[in-house]
Amino acid sequence: MSGSQQATESDRYAGRRVKRVEDARLLTGRGTFVDDVVRPGMLHVNFVRSPVARARITGIDISEALALDGVHAVLTAADINPHVHEQWFSLEGRHAPDTPRPPLAEGEVRHVGDPVAMIIAQDRYIAEDAAELVIVDYDQLPPVVDYATAFDSSELVHEAYPGNLVGQIGGRPMADLAPTFDSAPHVVSETYHQQAYCAMPMETRGIVTEWSPSDGTMTIWTATQSPHEVRGFCARLLAIPEHSVRVVMRDTGGGFGQKVLPLREDMCMMIAATKVPAPLKWIEDRQEHLLAAGQARHEHGEARMAFDDDGRILAATIDHVQDAGAYPSPNPVGSGIAVGLIFPGPYRIPEGTFNSRFAFSNTSGRVAYRGPWQFESVARECLLDVAARQIGIDPVELRRKNMLRRDELPTANCNGMPYSDITPLETFEQALEILDYDAFRREQEQARAAGRYIGVGTCTYVEPTAGASALYGTEGATIRVEPSGKVNVYVAGGSCGNSLETTVIQLTADALGVDIADVSSIQGDTAVTPFGGGTGGSRSGPMTAGAVNQTATELRGRILALAAHLLGGVPVDEVEFTRGVASVKGSPEKQVTLAEIAETAYFKSGSLPAELSVGLEVSGRFRAQHLMLWANATHVCTCEVDIVTGEVKLLRYIVSEDCGPMINPNVVEGQIFGGTVQGIGGALYEELAYDDAGNPVTTTFMDYLLPTAAEVPTIELGHVETPSIGPGGYKGVGEGGAIGAPPAVINAVADALAPFGVRISRLPLTPSTIIDLLEEAAQRGAAGAAGAARTAVAG
Amino acid sequence: MSGSQQATESDRYAGRRVKRVEDARLLTGRGTFVDDVVRPGMLHVNFVRSPVARARITGIDISEALALDGVHAVLTAADINPHVHEQWFSLEGRHAPDTPRPPLAEGEVRHVGDPVAMIIAQDRYIAEDAAELVIVDYDQLPPVVDYATAFDSSELVHEAYPGNLVGQIGGRPMADLAPTFDSAPHVVSETYHQQAYCAMPMETRGIVTEWSPSDGTMTIWTATQSPHEVRGFCARLLAIPEHSVRVVMRDTGGGFGQKVLPLREDMCMMIAATKVPAPLKWIEDRQEHLLAAGQARHEHGEARMAFDDDGRILAATIDHVQDAGAYPSPNPVGSGIAVGLIFPGPYRIPEGTFNSRFAFSNTSGRVAYRGPWQFESVARECLLDVAARQIGIDPVELRRKNMLRRDELPTANCNGMPYSDITPLETFEQALEILDYDAFRREQEQARAAGRYIGVGTCTYVEPTAGASALYGTEGATIRVEPSGKVNVYVAGGSCGNSLETTVIQLTADALGVDIADVSSIQGDTAVTPFGGGTGGSRSGPMTAGAVNQTATELRGRILALAAHLLGGVPVDEVEFTRGVASVKGSPEKQVTLAEIAETAYFKSGSLPAELSVGLEVSGRFRAQHLMLWANATHVCTCEVDIVTGEVKLLRYIVSEDCGPMINPNVVEGQIFGGTVQGIGGALYEELAYDDAGNPVTTTFMDYLLPTAAEVPTIELGHVETPSIGPGGYKGVGEGGAIGAPPAVINAVADALAPFGVRISRLPLTPSTIIDLLEEAAQRGAAGAAGAARTAVAG
Repeated sequence: MSGSQQATESDRYAGRRVKRVEDARLLTGRGTFVDDVVRPGMLHVNFVRSPVARARITGIDISEALALDGVHAVLTAADINPHVHEQWFSLEGRHAPDTPRPPLAEGEVRHVGDPVAMIIAQDRYIAEDAAELVIVDYDQLPPVVDYATAFDSSELVHEAYPGNLVGQIGGRPMADLAPTFDSAPHVVSETYHQQAYCAMPMETRGIVTEWSPSDGTMTIWTATQSPHEVRGFCARLLAIPEHSVRVVMRDTGGGFGQKVLPLREDMCMMIAATKVPAPLKWIEDRQEHLLAAGQARHEHGEARMAFDDDGRILAATIDHVQDAGAYPSPNPVGSGIAVGLIFPGPYRIPEGTFNSRFAFSNTSGRVAYRGPWQFESVARECLLDVAARQIGIDPVELRRKNMLRRDELPTANCNGMPYSDITPLETFEQALEILDYDAFRREQEQARAAGRYIGVGTCTYVEPTAGASALYGTEGATIRVEPSGKVNVYVAGGSCGNSLETTVIQLTADALGVDIADVSSIQGDTAVTPFGGGTGGSRSGPMTAGAVNQTATELRGRILALAAHLLGGVPVDEVEFTRGVASVKGSPEKQVTLAEIAETAYFKSGSLPAELSVGLEVSGRFRAQHLMLWANATHVCTCEVDIVTGEVKLLRYIVSEDCGPMINPNVVEGQIFGGTVQGIGGALYEELAYDDAGNPVTTTFMDYLLPTAAEVPTIELGHVETPSIGPGGYKGVGEGGAIGAPPAVINAVADALAPFGVRISRLPLTPSTIIDLLEEAAQRGAAGAAGAARTAVAG
Repeated sequence: MSGSQQATESDRYAGRRVKRVEDARLLTGRGTFVDDVVRPGMLHVNFVRSPVARARITGIDISEALALDGVHAVLTAADINPHVHEQWFSLEGRHAPDTPRPPLAEGEVRHVGDPVAMIIAQDRYIAEDAAELVIVDYDQLPPVVDYATAFDSSELVHEAYPGNLVGQIGGRPMADLAPTFDSAPHVVSETYHQQAYCAMPMETRGIVTEWSPSDGTMTIWTATQSPHEVRGFCARLLAIPEHSVRVVMRDTGGGFGQKVLPLREDMCMMIAATKVPAPLKWIEDRQEHLLAAGQARHEHGEARMAFDDDGRILAATIDHVQDAGAYPSPNPVGSGIAVGLIFPGPYRIPEGTFNSRFAFSNTSGRVAYRGPWQFESVARECLLDVAARQIGIDPVELRRKNMLRRDELPTANCNGMPYSDITPLETFEQALEILDYDAFRREQEQARAAGRYIGVGTCTYVEPTAGASALYGTEGATIRVEPSGKVNVYVAGGSCGNSLETTVIQLTADALGVDIADVSSIQGDTAVTPFGGGTGGSRSGPMTAGAVNQTATELRGRILALAAHLLGGVPVDEVEFTRGVASVKGSPEKQVTLAEIAETAYFKSGSLPAELSVGLEVSGRFRAQHLMLWANATHVCTCEVDIVTGEVKLLRYIVSEDCGPMINPNVVEGQIFGGTVQGIGGALYEELAYDDAGNPVTTTFMDYLLPTAAEVPTIELGHVETPSIGPGGYKGVGEGGAIGAPPAVINAVADALAPFGVRISRLPLTPSTIIDLLEEAAQRGAAGAAGAARTAVAG
């Protein structure tokens, strides 16, 4: 631990390393995940999935499967799909069409793993056996595997989308910038290709659906980041009132964006529950997860920048193409625009524009993944290092020259994004100081002289958090003082790894003025908590803080009024209330506890003057006045590359971030650690790969490589603290780690291999990729002496 | 249906015969009672119970039981009782001692059925078998079976209570009234003995307890009238915070007072759950219910009244003794005082007093039962009929002379109870008019002449409802408008037969101004709803109405403010809002629906001026300004008695009541019907009887006789409507039926048998009792010509 981690000396719980309340159950193996939910008479579901990437379904014979002992039903698209009432939610015109997403494949399968039929059986074993007995006749069709060439393919993933184009969005015409680029002293460009990878939560997807035909109500237990999103979805899907759907989650073993929206299997489970007289459970296995839980990050883009003679950026553009897969959730056009908008990052760039296109392909659908727009950082930060080498300036110096400074804020970037309260240069300098950049450069020289290739890479980004977009502009909290004086705080939330129970308890204890041991939080049940947007968009901290603060303020007023009466009728503003004890200012000997106040409110109301209100429960709804809260950070990474094996070993990893004040440093650090490791995985190891026929080749953890503790160095942290304009000055911090890590790692590898003239444009940087890059550079003749040396060693 | 049932012509739902929302599930067999709750790994409990009324336990051998396959544990007092932290809740000084109530019998058993050990097994069958294998050595002691002689017994039920006296409470000394009685022209007295009988809910007791050792939380599913009472109890019992206990009830198949407080088996289940690593279920069987679920109504009292020459009451006293059994819940002294206080009833009585004593006995404990103080009506109303016969005045005339009239109100009775808003004379006259009293008397004369003995009895009573006593002075409600514009209303409540879901929905729809189809109610889960007193004391209607009205008023204000903005910024007071649609007064063409208002509040908050609040959830707590709300009614019953068989056949049954405005006439009528039938059962059929050795002799429904549809005539209703000073003018109506029925039936039987000089003083009036009474009267020579005739027939 290093950097400006500040000590909190006050009495507040916010800012302290309060232990996570979730851990009592999670660390003792007593969490309640979906698979822990057992309902009487529950049946188990397994899906029959397509073994081919694209085919016409010419027949399905379920008779043998149905005959298997213990099989209760086998459902196909004909049974399920007609019951979809409304799938997508659109604010303006609820019936706005979106990309196709049938629950079960209908007529055609569109990727390997596409669900074709649904087995409902006494247990999962039987359901698995029965799936083998469903005979599906496939008439194979040529698949569109490569999204990058999909626009030119005569084969269509969905007939209604010519050229496989999902959509296109952009800023001003690229041609507008031609004069700038044409006249610039330096123009740098590179096309970066990012591989498909994805959230790999420890808990796969899972859902239990239970329909009560007597009153037309549905109860759903599911691994989700947003129980209210699932509730609203199910209500629209089945055309029943929202209050007829109850969604319960206790613990979700990670979501990372993948578990915000219900996917196709969830739809099947909701509809099927209304057709069979039993609760249904489906727990995704890891192979299914790798086949059908969606993909992310699969995109490429040509990034271009123009510089003046001093290395100042004159213009920046990106031409971006994204793989939507066969069934994206949601339509990627909405979220993809952020790649273009944020591409200028934390730099002073006078001119810029972007273009984004989205292509269908015969792979599983694109889903959100922690910082869904992170390609902007990959493209920008990697290109800046290329530019530095091309212009002949140290990459750190290049950034210092161009990075926005505090006195330039607030400002808007050249694509119109309004920035405020960011500290890119401060985090950059802090991270470099933690590293001791100059010392590293000296070490690097010595190492090279000794035939060791080490490098340093940085990434500085700005990140929109807690966006108050249409669906997420408010957040509610209910706080109830119980008769014993204990406090329950109700927020939509839900435990999916972001420690919201702990932070909400801290915030409530502070805002009310009670002891943290007296507060508990109830979350994750739509029948119980106020509506909330759920976990996503790095919003939970700031938005929930707003809701809790607003609610607690009103409740505290009521507590003080009762306390003033019990303390002998003193004026309310003479009452002090701290840690659940009220006293008269200056006379600490006369006290009344919250337990006594509650006992009076609930049980001795007859003793109170008529004008005193006895309610000790308040519901408040925070309404964001901000559009988004900007966080920022710098990642700095050093690595050594083994030029013989191609292995990349990370040496040091430093993150300096500014998420505003920290509610709980342990939680902030956990978020940064987790995201960073996912980003490292994306840079070096993980890939959802397909062969040319559209067959997935990474369907187990033997093939899909996740970083483990052995691959990740200690992550060193620095903290810069600039309050946002949001509640408590907080900013979101959930996604940043996954955004900043890939460019920092890539740049470090590129820097290590700079002597060989290597240019990186394809990910991930596996050992074989490194070897290929070195060989390609050698063939290009890009290598100098070092290249020759490497050839000698490798030869 | 007859009487003044008024038509409600307005747009309000209150007052209408809205169909019960509970019925959708209950009538289709889809209710969720405790036995429907199945938890993974759940084990089943059975209790080993004492076969003798009183004995010292000299040894318990559990080894054989433990050896039985499928038995997980056998627990005795040594395992359970030391874990009781605090059992009773007392407002002033929480550790105030109360009557002993060990979870399992310790050292001594005190009634047949006293739980001695607890078997925990894989299923109930095994648990039953294992109970047979527990060898308990009993050293028998002489039992105190008859509470009436218990004060003089040298044997003590509990050593700490000399003379078996639980407690004693009274008004001014009886001797103070001696001058009045000594000088009165007429003094009438009788000692009435009421048998033990009890609530016989369709669902017996039952509880599932699940302890989570990782976080020290308890979840309880139980058949209860008051989930929050159970929660608070469990928290005190285990010395854990209230918020660590969650009590859930969905449907409870009747409670009637018996299911307000947890009883001893519940304590065992709460403690045992913390000792074994599995959820536990115990469902009481009917035999256990008759042995150990408690008894009620077992009491006697000498009632005395003095009259002047005109039949005006000069004074009234009651000397009352109640059976507390071995383990009363709660201490009966607290509730028993009401018998004395209300004994003057709806009559103008200048002087009076009372005395009440409570005796332990070796029978199961006294529990509350619908109108726990109803003995006051039995004693008073039966004595009035005796007085009328003694003074030689028609009992109706006697009552008319003495009954309080509207212009005398408000007033206090001679024991200090303050009456207001009651209409005893109006209900009395209305009921008699429905009957046509004079015509009945003519018919009676003709019948007697023909050797048929028919009679008429009345009972007029006043009833304290919705008492704002210490524990029940407030009630909370939370109302939430969901994003779709649907409304959820949260109250503690719970479905135990009183239709609170339906009435709450009616009240909310009215108070908010929305369509009733858009409202649903969530109840019966302490983690979900605000604290509430539960069902008891005829409080749910008025108290919940107060909570809902208060809460809805604030929420409606917020809705109107948003509507005013959406309607173009008109002033709020120009907005009309009815059935979920807002419009500008006088311009009905421009409308905005609650769904649109909710969509704006949740999803389009950015479009609203900053000063508008977007919260659509409000929690309110109603604080009663009343001490109690007085309801009143008159029951009139006619019957025919077969003097040969002793059979009593009810001919007509009329109830005229004043519960203030009716929220839902269907619900009011259901309450009156149910209570009346229970009262008829108490007068004629039901008895929890013991032999002289303390052996219960009514342990199945073959012996414990419940009235069925065949025994009960159509109940005719009249309604008088005087608003109370409480919310909506409502009064409670839950208990009255059970109070008014026994005296009306007893008086009708006495009236039918008046020609034989029969004096009734012991209940119930079974055929053999009737024959005994007739024979006793004949031996007394009380009979005139009719008596001789009966002797001739019977002989």
